[in-house]
Order: sequence, then structure tokens, then C-alpha cells
Amino acid sequence: KKSFRVVVLPGDGIGPDVVAQAVRVLEVVSATSPDIELKLEEHLFGGCAIDATGVPLPESTLQACKEADAILMGSVGGPKWDVNSKVRPEQGLLGLRKGLGLYANIRPCNFASDSLLSYSPLKASVAQGTDIIIIRELIGGAYFGERKELGQAEQPDVAYDTMIYSIPEVQRITRVAAQIALNADPPLAIHSIDKANVLASSRLWRKVVVETLQNEYPQLKLDHTLVDSASMVMVASPRKLNGVVVTENLFGDILSDEASVIPGSLGLLPSASLAGAPSVADALSPEFKPTHGLYEPIHGSAPDIAGKGIANPIGTILSAALLLRYSLGLDKYAQAIEKAVQKVLDNQDIGGFELRTADLGGSAKTTEIGDKIVEVL
Amino acid sequence: KKSFRVVVLPGDGIGPDVVAQAVRVLEVVSATSPDIELKLEEHLFGGCAIDATGVPLPESTLQACKEADAILMGSVGGPKWDVNSKVRPEQGLLGLRKGLGLYANIRPCNFASDSLLSYSPLKASVAQGTDIIIIRELIGGAYFGERKELGQAEQPDVAYDTMIYSIPEVQRITRVAAQIALNADPPLAIHSIDKANVLASSRLWRKVVVETLQNEYPQLKLDHTLVDSASMVMVASPRKLNGVVVTENLFGDILSDEASVIPGSLGLLPSASLAGAPSVADALSPEFKPTHGLYEPIHGSAPDIAGKGIANPIGTILSAALLLRYSLGLDKYAQAIEKAVQKVLDNQDIGGFELRTADLGGSAKTTEIGDKIVEVL
Ligand SMILES: CC(C)[C@H](C(=O)O)[C@@H](O)C(=O)O
Ligand SMILES: CC(C)[C@H](C(=O)O)[C@@H](O)C(=O)O
Repeated sequence: KKSFRVVVLPGDGIGPDVVAQAVRVLEVVSATSPDIELKLEEHLFGGCAIDATGVPLPESTLQACKEADAILMGSVGGPKWDVNSKVRPEQGLLGLRKGLGLYANIRPCNFASDSLLSYSPLKASVAQGTDIIIIRELIGGAYFGERKELGQAEQPDVAYDTMIYSIPEVQRITRVAAQIALNADPPLAIHSIDKANVLASSRLWRKVVVETLQNEYPQLKLDHTLVDSASMVMVASPRKLNGVVVTENLFGDILSDEASVIPGSLGLLPSASLAGAPSVADALSPEFKPTHGLYEPIHGSAPDIAGKGIANPIGTILSAALLLRYSLGLDKYAQAIEKAVQKVLDNQDIGGFELRTADLGGSAKTTEIGDKIVEVL
Repeated sequence: KKSFRVVVLPGDGIGPDVVAQAVRVLEVVSATSPDIELKLEEHLFGGCAIDATGVPLPESTLQACKEADAILMGSVGGPKWDVNSKVRPEQGLLGLRKGLGLYANIRPCNFASDSLLSYSPLKASVAQGTDIIIIRELIGGAYFGERKELGQAEQPDVAYDTMIYSIPEVQRITRVAAQIALNADPPLAIHSIDKANVLASSRLWRKVVVETLQNEYPQLKLDHTLVDSASMVMVASPRKLNGVVVTENLFGDILSDEASVIPGSLGLLPSASLAGAPSVADALSPEFKPTHGLYEPIHGSAPDIAGKGIANPIGTILSAALLLRYSLGLDKYAQAIEKAVQKVLDNQDIGGFELRTADLGGSAKTTEIGDKIVEVL
């Protein structure tokens, strides 16, 4: 039996609720599979870690994450920990991303089930068939460039951040995008988003994306959209962006959240943040093998419904599926989970019981969704 | 008779087509009004200026704009002038903004007529009642901070831009937002958008917005939304942002374009870019009086339909209305134009002729829309 170590970071707010259900799903996979074993261990992270230890990312948590085969996270933050205070839960998240070198954030955005079209804010004719994988560069740009706070010498009334990119940083994220595009048959189109008509960092971005793909993946289709235009297209005709969208950190933050409302509920969508710099040689291999992977639902800690047991666990369960696929190389278990989720959402062959959480107009509890997915599985 | 000098910059692509109709409307106002006279003069700007003079913003054009009471623009750019070439049409636009100090970009986003709801990509129930005025800071942030291109010493494989703001820059744009909010009865709510959980420039932004409003406009309602969250809300429930949205340059670029697709056609929306730093004293006056004002539709130069005579001139005609309101203080003429546009869009009392351009599913020519608006006026 092959054994994998999975660190679980429930975090704050609804994090523990939703993570508990994904853990059940992983335990079922572990218990029923003849060839693998998953060893799950919980660690403190985020606001709850600040309360317990004074810092959002305790050294022991970071260490465990470094040693693990994969990490499953809930969500961090909440009104209890103010944006203005010195120690904030997000610092833990940014520290973990940087500490593990998680430079590739992957966010699929599609309809897990067509039965969800009615929950989309977009007209069904506009939203239907949206199938975008957003690849966001996660440890560069304005998030990690040199910064100056208000009040510091020499110009106390000025503050700045630096949007900075180097050629290798853009090369490696381009290769991840290319590999994900190649995982599909036929390969997906790549849409690169930048603001090259204004920003120097975007001109570097565009040049490196073009050259990397031309040299290493000449078979892939590539186009470029300015970020302002992309934010329109994402609403007006999202299918035009079907395929792989690749962009820098801050644009990716904005566009991936914009995209995430299309499928009707934030509660449904998973994400993966991966480390491991593919060399040109790796890039030619059919699979992208991350050295570290952090998996989390895209929604926040939703303090308003925390502890009520009504949060939608599906985004976290689908994140666990991505964990199996990308970090553990267990695609068949990932697919099994995705199929079970779809079945529950389609609500077919399972007795017509309206099995949906409040975000999808239902009244099911978090645990009931978990129960049903485990049962179908 | 009071006389005003208005500089007209038709620009590229469909710019000349749509500007011609707005000019007709302004000429009707000038000819029929007993108390004012508008002197219109055309100048070269954008790609056509590059072709004619080698630069997108000739000195004579900048000079005329500085001396004018207001500027009406079409649109600039097109595939003919490459993003990678040294001289680009957008540089003219950025140069004009900076040269005139046009720091406040104002973009109303609403349904000129409820009959347009069916053109929105959003469900009618989501889109209806959207009524947002976006105030974008236009000459600060990453657009004008220090930048380094790829290939330059000392680190030739790195490029960066600097998102930089000073206290006075944020104060003055906050005051514009406040004055626009106060122009409505009851005053509008102010939604400030930033990324204060990550960026130092956003922490400065938030602090200055809070303090300026607390000190000078304590009666106004203010809330804060992170830019990623705002980009979701704009799609999922845009009415939550009804009122005044105020944000920095790059976020404003992205969010205003995102918002602009809600009303169904980009061809309908006007914008104003204003200069003139209101002091605290000005700020208490009921009206914001810009020293310079540039008015343009929000759409681009649409090279695919340029010269076909089918572009929608309404965004430009509504821009002319804003010109009358903000720069010339002629609110009653602005209202008359806005009413005429609404009537044509509502298609009432004008014979049932389907008076719409192709972007709204009709087959009317640019000039026919102009004819009808002039007639109704
Ligand atoms: C919490 C915050 C720092 C984070 C980000 O901006 O990256 C979040 O918005 C996300 O997208 O994961
Ligand atoms: C053309 C470009 C430089 C410009 C900008 O980014 O400001 C445009 O997108 C706009 O919003 O007016």
C-alpha cells in the first residue's frame, strides 16, 4: 500500500464545517482502496492560529506542510481579525504560498451540473457551456514586490507597491498553463491576460508568454486580451474565454473571483495552488508534477453562517478531488468524487430529495451533503 | 450671449462617425438657445495624428485642449498601431489626461431605458435598477508610477510598475466622489474599492477616504469592498453597488469596463474626465466645477465596423450632455438631450420605427439615430 501524508488546515469560519466533509470523503477513498492509504493530520492556521499562538502560520504548521504530500485547507479570516491590525490571517495564507513556492493557482470554472444554470446571475444562454480554467500566478507581482507604507520616511505621505515580474517567473507559469491545456484532448486554447498597452510588467508578461509557447509548445493556440476587456468578456460572453486563462497575480485575483460567480454559487468551486518549477524537460512530460500542493474551496470563511452547519461543502470536496489528481496522481479517485458530486447535484436516482444547501436555494445541512456524496461514492 | 470653446477630437475607427452625430446635437443646442453659443473646432488626436504628424498628441492639439472650455472625444487606437511599437495612440490619451490633470473619471452605469434589459447578459432580475456612478482616479497609481522595461540595466530580465498614491491625490478624488454623491437627493452612498488586505497603496487609499469623508462629509454613508469581492458583486448583485463607487486607476479601469456591459451595449455609455482640485472650501459648494473636462463614449474605436456608418452614437451624444452639465454648467440642456435619447430608446411616440443600431439588434444607421435625436430635441 502506498501511503500519503495529507495536512488538513480547517481554518476559520465555515472552514472546519466544510473541511470535515471533505475529510470524510478522503477517508472513504483511503478505507476502500486496495492500493493506497491517506494519513490525515490537522494543524492550526489562520485566525484560530493567531488566537492560539499569536501568529497565523505557526512554524510547526509550515514545517508539516513542507513535509506533506498535499494540503487541504478550509478558509481563513473574519471580522474578528481586522484589516488594520498588525497580525492578520491573510498573512498566513500569503506566507504559506510564498513559503512553499506555490506559484500556480488553478481554478476551474464550469457548471458541475446544468441544473445549476438557473442560479447563475447571467442569462442561461450566456452562461451555458462556460468552461474556463484560470491559471493565476500566485507569488509574484504587486503581492510580493517591494512596498512602502504610509508614514514611513522619506516621503511619509506616500505609499506604494511594486508590480514586478522576471522572465523565469513568467516562463514557469506559462508552462503550467501549457501543460494543463495539453491535458485535454483536443488541447485547450490559451488566453493570456495583461495590460500591455500601459504596464511594463505586462509587456514582459506578454513577450515571455509568446516566446515560451512558440519555442516549447508551438502546437497550442494563444491569444491576448487586455484585462479591462477581459473583465467585460467574462460577463458578456464568457464562452469566448473557454480553455485556459493565464494571468498575473492581481489580475488573476480579480478575474477568478469575477468568473466564480458565473456558476451560481461560490460554494461549488475548488482550487489548487501548486509548486514545482517544470523545466523544459518536465514541460514535455504529459503530466505536471507539483512538489507541493494546497487545495481549498474558493469561497471565504463566511462568518455570517459559520457554525450553523449550512455551508456548502462541495467546493471543498471537489478540492479534495483535485488534491488526489494533481498531488497524489490518483486521477481515477478524483474522477469518482467528481462524478458523485455531479450525481448529487443532478439529484438523479437518489430519491428526489432536494439535496441542496442554502446557497442553492435548498435547506440541506452541510453534513447531509457529505452523507449523500459518501453514499453515492 | 455666452460663448464657449469646445475642442472636438474625432480620433480613429468609429470615432469620427459617432462624434459627427454628437456635434450635430451640440450645434442644435447652440443654434436654438437664446443665451449661449458653442464654438466647435476639430483637432488631430490618436492614430490619425500619428499618421499625419508622427505623434499621437501634437503640441497644437494639447494647446487647444488647454485653452478650451471642454473637449469632446471619439475613440483612439486600432490594430494599425501595434502595442509593441514605440509610438502608440494610447500614449496620446494618457498624455492628454496627465497634461490637463484630468484626475477624475466619471462613468455612470445605468439603463437609459428599461426596454434595454433584454440586451443585458445578466438576468433581468439581477440587472434591473442598476444605477452606479463609477469615479475612477485617472492620473495616479500604476499608470504613472516609476516603471522599468524589460532589457534595461541593471536587471535586464525584470520589469516593474509602481502603484503609488499620495495623500492629496486620494483626498481630491474622494471629494469629487462626495460632491457627486451630494448632487443627488437623498445623497448617494459611497462604496470605496481597494485591496487593503494586501497592498500598501490600498491601505493609504482606505485611510484617506475614511478620514476625508469623516472630516468633511460626515453625513455621507461609506463602505469598503475589496476589489476581488467587488468584481463578484458587480455581476452577482450589482444593485448592492448602487450609488457612487470610488477607486484607484487600475481597479477603476477593470471595474468600470466590467460594469459597462451590464446595460446591454457599450455603445450607450458616456464618460467624463475632469480636472480641478477642489479645496475643502470648494468641496462645500454644491457643484463641482472642473477646470478642464474631456468627454468621450466608453467604447473603443471598433475597427471592425469603422466607416460602415452603423456604430451607435448614443454614448457620444450622452457624453456631450455631460459636457454641457459639468464643464459648461448648462444642466437644462444636458437634461433635454438625455430625455431625447431616452425617448428614442423607448421608441415611444415616434412612429414605432425600430430605431436601433446593430449593437441593439436593430438595423438603423448612425446618422438615422442622430437625425431622430435631433428631431425629438
Ligand atoms: C485573502 C487574500 C490575501 C487572497 C488574495 O488576494 O490572494 C484571496 O483573495 C485569494 O484570492 O485567495
Ligand atoms: C486605452 C487605455 C490606455 C485606457 C486605460 O487603460 O485607461 C482605456 O482602457 C480606458 O479605460 O480609457
